[in-house]
Amino acid sequence: MSNVIIGQSGGPTAVINSSLAGAIKAAKIRGIPKVYGMHYGIEGFLNDDIIDMDDYLHDLNDLSLLKRTPAAFLGSCRYKLPDVEGNEAVYERIFSLLEKYDIEYFLYIGGNDSMDTIKKLHDYARATGKRQKFMGVPKTIDNDLPITDHCPGYGSAAKFVATSMDELIADNESFGGGAPRICVVEIMGRNAGWLTAASVLSHNSDCTGPDLIYCPEVPLDLNNFVTRVQDLAKAKKSVVIAVSEGLTTSDGTLVCDLNNDHEFVDAFGHKQLSGCGRVLANLVANETGYKTRAIEFSLLQRCSTHLASRADLDEAYNVGFIACDEALKGESGRMVVLLVRHREPYVCDYQTVDVHEVANLEKKLPLEWITNDGTYVSKDFVEYASPLIIGTVMPYYAAGIPKHMSVKYSKINK
Amino acid sequence: MSNVIIGQSGGPTAVINSSLAGAIKAAKIRGIPKVYGMHYGIEGFLNDDIIDMDDYLHDLNDLSLLKRTPAAFLGSCRYKLPDVEGNEAVYERIFSLLEKYDIEYFLYIGGNDSMDTIKKLHDYARATGKRQKFMGVPKTIDNDLPITDHCPGYGSAAKFVATSMDELIADNESFGGGAPRICVVEIMGRNAGWLTAASVLSHNSDCTGPDLIYCPEVPLDLNNFVTRVQDLAKAKKSVVIAVSEGLTTSDGTLVCDLNNDHEFVDAFGHKQLSGCGRVLANLVANETGYKTRAIEFSLLQRCSTHLASRADLDEAYNVGFIACDEALKGESGRMVVLLVRHREPYVCDYQTVDVHEVANLEKKLPLEWITNDGTYVSKDFVEYASPLIIGTVMPYYAAGIPKHMSVKYSKINK
Repeated sequence: MSNVIIGQSGGPTAVINSSLAGAIKAAKIRGIPKVYGMHYGIEGFLNDDIIDMDDYLHDLNDLSLLKRTPAAFLGSCRYKLPDVEGNEAVYERIFSLLEKYDIEYFLYIGGNDSMDTIKKLHDYARATGKRQKFMGVPKTIDNDLPITDHCPGYGSAAKFVATSMDELIADNESFGGGAPRICVVEIMGRNAGWLTAASVLSHNSDCTGPDLIYCPEVPLDLNNFVTRVQDLAKAKKSVVIAVSEGLTTSDGTLVCDLNNDHEFVDAFGHKQLSGCGRVLANLVANETGYKTRAIEFSLLQRCSTHLASRADLDEAYNVGFIACDEALKGESGRMVVLLVRHREPYVCDYQTVDVHEVANLEKKLPLEWITNDGTYVSKDFVEYASPLIIGTVMPYYAAGIPKHMSVKYSKINK
Repeated sequence: MSNVIIGQSGGPTAVINSSLAGAIKAAKIRGIPKVYGMHYGIEGFLNDDIIDMDDYLHDLNDLSLLKRTPAAFLGSCRYKLPDVEGNEAVYERIFSLLEKYDIEYFLYIGGNDSMDTIKKLHDYARATGKRQKFMGVPKTIDNDLPITDHCPGYGSAAKFVATSMDELIADNESFGGGAPRICVVEIMGRNAGWLTAASVLSHNSDCTGPDLIYCPEVPLDLNNFVTRVQDLAKAKKSVVIAVSEGLTTSDGTLVCDLNNDHEFVDAFGHKQLSGCGRVLANLVANETGYKTRAIEFSLLQRCSTHLASRADLDEAYNVGFIACDEALKGESGRMVVLLVRHREPYVCDYQTVDVHEVANLEKKLPLEWITNDGTYVSKDFVEYASPLIIGTVMPYYAAGIPKHMSVKYSKINK
């Protein structure tokens, strides 16, 4: 029997290693001799930088610890494979490395950009008659992969956003005297509002939820924004606003570009979006004189495995397992998707779809779920997202902080 | 028997309500008829805005839920009592309100500024022959109250900082290709480095800990800062730096003042310190061209009760209980302090001290615990802080997020 290799790509999530654990488990159950990991994704693989998972995983304790480990255990990358034409050497190198380690099954855990890698490698393999199978494992806190009901990683990020929003609102409400306190909370998600919308899940019998929710699917009118905040501040001392990092004004300008900080573009051509909340908080402060504060959940929303959703962690494991299992059955060029049979009671099933239908494509928050002139989200969204944040995963604590799997690579080629 | 009133003042902590719960419990055990809460501290009390705790706490379940509720349940304030001379009316109003509700015991949960309130009321009461007793309950994530070994609220904030730093470092280490990634993490603590120093507690067998730690006790040399980061970035792809919000340069300028955002000063005369991390991240980006990111833990570090330290939550409860108990025994003008008998095994005892010895005073991180030319902290600090973050407090989860006590006031005077 030939071997399996697994890679992780793009921004990590709180449960990306649970997918890795699931894929490894499936391979082991099927008697695969060697499960390799790409160190830093396809970029590392091109440098022949791979590890043997047997060096890290010795028993079920290790597998459980891996599931509780934040960030990309294998290391990640934002490397986009070039088109084949004119870059045949890159593809030849990849397939010669695959043969060198007798690897027939190639799994890649990532989002819409990373699925482009699966697509290109599958297409090349079919065009050139190679034996390798390529399967995609969905992963993104942005929740913007098409076809699948939702994406592993989103539920845990949503749980972090809802929990932190709940705690923040309580804090902001602590001060009743003096001027109103305006808190603008910036949430990730790039061009999609899924994660920002999840701030509404903080609303329950003991928390009002945010007062306003701005998703990037609707352009932001800056004047209207200030007016809305002013109106709220006349009625209550604490105003908390959730804004997406990817908000734009009606002419398409990113709100975060209205600041003057340093800017970077990643290898996929994406800008580091950051600062939208600060721009809006400063705007409110300047226009109204209210005490304002900008808060960015920043990387915490994607790496807080201590607050992972049990539903999400289990689904992440399952998609990893199923992707590997399907590859071993001979499937290729496909990605696992989640199909929700019922939301209440919650029943989720799995299928695979042609990776050409998902690579490089974005699924945005449906406009009909954005309400109140673009300043809130609907009950349909709440019904959609609620099951995804259910359940807790207790970390293993040592000396007061969560224990993780140690990432000290004994690279097999170094 | 006369009644008890309790207030909360200053910035909330993750466990400030545990102190409230402890004080209520002590009063109930001693048969106090009514336990009142000041709605928004002494500022609210002056407006006759008080609540009856019996309206909220009906059994032990409620008390446990209160201990798990973030932010100031009663509402807080940053109101500084004026000196008596020329402001006799303020004091007369306070004592007439105390008599109106037959309140003999006044407990105030707060930090060094809030203890000024206890000091002034106690001194006024003794000077004018009033019967009331005034006791202080220590609380601050800054950990800067004198005499006490440490302050309730600090352990939970330290646990949040250590845990989040561990998770962030894993995330920042996920990318191995390309240019180094510099992450500057801004941590609260005002003029004291206690909380920033706690970032070192992320260091263990599976985490390197931050690469550099800058506390405000040592002035920052901006050029040296950039050089240190550059040197690190030559050796490793991920560089994570913990910086205190209160960092200054050698001429006393706050680093956060080197930005141009809106600024506010609170009623205690304190500026909202924020932006130091951003200033330093921008400096590194401009000087080196590295990919940098500034992260502010912001209010999350003081309101994340879901990650409270069990040791801290229990001590917060105990100081509330003991303060009430001592007041009922006739003590006044004092604050409870924690005395650590042994750090290993950890044994903590309690005493009270004259509030004149703590009000308005700050205790900073000892300079001998700051090492490596002001860029790290010592093992003595680790030994000091480690016991304070031990143990977890499971939230009560409902619909995937922590349940809190609802703050819907039925004010007794409204």
